[in-house]
Amino acid sequence: MSAVLRHILDARQFTRQWLDDVLFPATIELQQTPAAQFGQPLAGKRLFYLFYEPSTRTRVSFEMAATLLGAGVHGIDSQEDQVRAERLEDRIQVLNEYPFDFLLLRYHQEGGAARAAAVSRVPVINAGDGVGQHPTQALLDVYTLKRELGRLDGLRVALVGDLSYERTTNSLAYLLALFSGLTLYLVSPQLLRMRQEVRDYLERSGAQIKEVRDLRAIASELDVVYVTRAHTERLQHAQRFEGDRAGSYALDADLLAALPQHARVLHPLPRGPELPAELDADPRIACFRQAANGLYVRMALLSLLGDTRD
Amino acid sequence: MSAVLRHILDARQFTRQWLDDVLFPATIELQQTPAAQFGQPLAGKRLFYLFYEPSTRTRVSFEMAATLLGAGVHGIDSQEDQVRAERLEDRIQVLNEYPFDFLLLRYHQEGGAARAAAVSRVPVINAGDGVGQHPTQALLDVYTLKRELGRLDGLRVALVGDLSYERTTNSLAYLLALFSGLTLYLVSPQLLRMRQEVRDYLERSGAQIKEVRDLRAIASELDVVYVTRAHTERLQHAQRFEGDRAGSYALDADLLAALPQHARVLHPLPRGPELPAELDADPRIACFRQAANGLYVRMALLSLLGDTRD
Amino acid sequence: MSAVLRHILDARQFTRQWLDDVLFPATIELQQTPAAQFGQPLAGKRLFYLFYEPSTRTRVSFEMAATLLGAGVHGIDSQEDQVRAERLEDRIQVLNEYPFDFLLLRYHQEGGAARAAAVSRVPVINAGDGVGQHPTQALLDVYTLKRELGRLDGLRVALVGDLSYERTTNSLAYLLALFSGLTLYLVSPQLLRMRQEVRDYLERSGAQIKEVRDLRAIASELDVVYVTRAHTERLQHAQRFEGDRAGSYALDADLLAALPQHARVLHPLPRGPELPAELDADPRIACFRQAANGLYVRMALLSLLGDTRD
Repeated sequence: MSAVLRHILDARQFTRQWLDDVLFPATIELQQTPAAQFGQPLAGKRLFYLFYEPSTRTRVSFEMAATLLGAGVHGIDSQEDQVRAERLEDRIQVLNEYPFDFLLLRYHQEGGAARAAAVSRVPVINAGDGVGQHPTQALLDVYTLKRELGRLDGLRVALVGDLSYERTTNSLAYLLALFSGLTLYLVSPQLLRMRQEVRDYLERSGAQIKEVRDLRAIASELDVVYVTRAHTERLQHAQRFEGDRAGSYALDADLLAALPQHARVLHPLPRGPELPAELDADPRIACFRQAANGLYVRMALLSLLGDTRD
Repeated sequence: MSAVLRHILDARQFTRQWLDDVLFPATIELQQTPAAQFGQPLAGKRLFYLFYEPSTRTRVSFEMAATLLGAGVHGIDSQEDQVRAERLEDRIQVLNEYPFDFLLLRYHQEGGAARAAAVSRVPVINAGDGVGQHPTQALLDVYTLKRELGRLDGLRVALVGDLSYERTTNSLAYLLALFSGLTLYLVSPQLLRMRQEVRDYLERSGAQIKEVRDLRAIASELDVVYVTRAHTERLQHAQRFEGDRAGSYALDADLLAALPQHARVLHPLPRGPELPAELDADPRIACFRQAANGLYVRMALLSLLGDTRD
Repeated sequence: MSAVLRHILDARQFTRQWLDDVLFPATIELQQTPAAQFGQPLAGKRLFYLFYEPSTRTRVSFEMAATLLGAGVHGIDSQEDQVRAERLEDRIQVLNEYPFDFLLLRYHQEGGAARAAAVSRVPVINAGDGVGQHPTQALLDVYTLKRELGRLDGLRVALVGDLSYERTTNSLAYLLALFSGLTLYLVSPQLLRMRQEVRDYLERSGAQIKEVRDLRAIASELDVVYVTRAHTERLQHAQRFEGDRAGSYALDADLLAALPQHARVLHPLPRGPELPAELDADPRIACFRQAANGLYVRMALLSLLGDTRD
């Protein structure tokens, strides 16, 4: 991977060395800088967001990141009725003619970001492409783990919930696989198992994968519980289908009590009942610190994309 | 009330002295300043609007007010599908981690603004919370009356329309009650009477309250007619229900002719047929001057909230 | 036409001399200026967009044009539920009280822009009014033809598709009629013929008008093919109704092969199957250059509207 970051499309594009030597230090530096001292390194540059699906959180996070670095922000929202009525490539060819410097794309189908990058004049950032990936979420997740636990090697991580259609966990699994000694516990209904291609990738990378039904049975061994939305129709349907064999994909006080003191609970938000707000006072619940980290990771990514030295 | 304004949640938080000595002078000064000379007292600060219900008027008014004072504006609209899919407190905890300085909140349930203020790191401005209140609308309403009539004591004011579910009139009644010699005529269907708690508050404050069915009978005694939207399903249903006993909640040429020359007609807009555009040429119709005042009242409020000296 | 441009409402308001001496030179100059050197001629000015119908393309184009010239941009989108719940004139009277400098209006009914201009304190730009007009699209269309072909006199132009409800072709026909020796081929279903009033205007201006069913029959004589959306319900209904007599309103490889080498194909975008992306490599397909020109034409228009010298 060259020093120049061209696009952010797929968590598999990143190396461990780039995370350790480039992204994490750049993020830490930004996070330790008072807002007033960011300077305006991206002054005169412009981010365009093109959203075929709603995403208030990712949009606001990137909008703030760009603004704090001095860039302007423009965009098209999924709410604008006709957004899907036009070929993605056409939209991007028109945007190519305008003086934008970054394209933040959320697309409703897997592969959208790669299609965009193939025709875009400017760096494309994949802000989620259907059931594919959400690489910037995964980057902020691993940054959070590094910051909270001090290490990324030898982690025992449980990914919990719908692991089939949840792009966040796909991207996170790819990044975790860069580190040695990973044990990944996959806690999902049978119908929503992690996709075969992701599992194959993990195994080739040397990670240990264990599919478990009962999060409780392994709680005391975990460093990380990564909980995802469990109140989706898909997950509820899978649970009904599996009946008695169905596991639980939610955190509760008992489970939290069983976790080691050093462990951390992450959640990409928005959350539902799978992560009860009553537990928030426990310092192991890291989801809001995780969201806060997202701002700085995205600032670092924009800075790196905007650095066009070869 | 300290010199520092911490949140704007409820019209009952304000004192007469604060209106007279702080808000009105600050607003007048801004209104007499050419736009180019506002300076940028809020430069580097940022307003975030979080709208669980649509509000183009209030949003645009605050957005302009913030912009004219040099602040940046970001936000999430009610149109973005999933806005209600997340706990209010979660949203605010995430925003707490971002460098915002003001939170403008419209919520679909009463009490939303207070819930937000309980967890927000920054001042919360209630831009309407369900059937609760809309305090900044009421502040611009009383400012308008002061400016138009020269006084707020001894006023005879008719509030007209749906007084039960109309948060605007709740907040306005609370503010009018700060002034002496208030006579308040409540002109509404039986089904949509002003709520008991608001009436009790008014009576304790010494205001005279008179429920009237026929606006015409009292028109010649009024200083102010405050008309609200009468083309709502709720009001039409109430009128059908009451049949012959139903009053009229609209202004017409005859009624306008019966008003004193010094009287004023206000409306929070948008209006329907209850305030016919054909009457606009009459200088007593003050609704557009009222809207204009709103910009300056909101500039003053942002300035006061942004002033963090103790 | 005075040197001062007051509003942009109707393509018929422009003269050939103004296009040749004012708009085209101003646009060319902007298009040849590096973005960093635009200066900020509209610094401190503000554009407000008020959209009663969605329009991502026109909104983004004007937003960028205003931003590149230093103006601020605010607005209300058609998605905001209640946008149509208020009289247009009321909305504009409220905006009159705010420090805006330009009003960009898309309205769902013909005549909206003229109604707005009648009450607006600031210049109104018609960004489409129902089935009426879309004059800034037509200005960028003729600018594109001038740039691509080097001339606007003596052109043979085919307008293709729904010519009755397509405001774009109304405005373009009015502008083309300013130039001498125009031959206009109207290629539409009988049910969707160009409106009589537009045809009368064209004939009075001296243009030759030919209604043709088969684009193929005239392809070799054309300088310009202006294709419009053919995948609308209206057009498909008309084609079903006409059965065997129905023509084709799409471009294909055969038709492209029949066009002269110097000819150009334009399309206002977004396109459907009537202009297959497989043909894009042909340099005669000018639709993306056309979109790019739009940015500079709109910058020129804003500059001219903002120039208040008499």
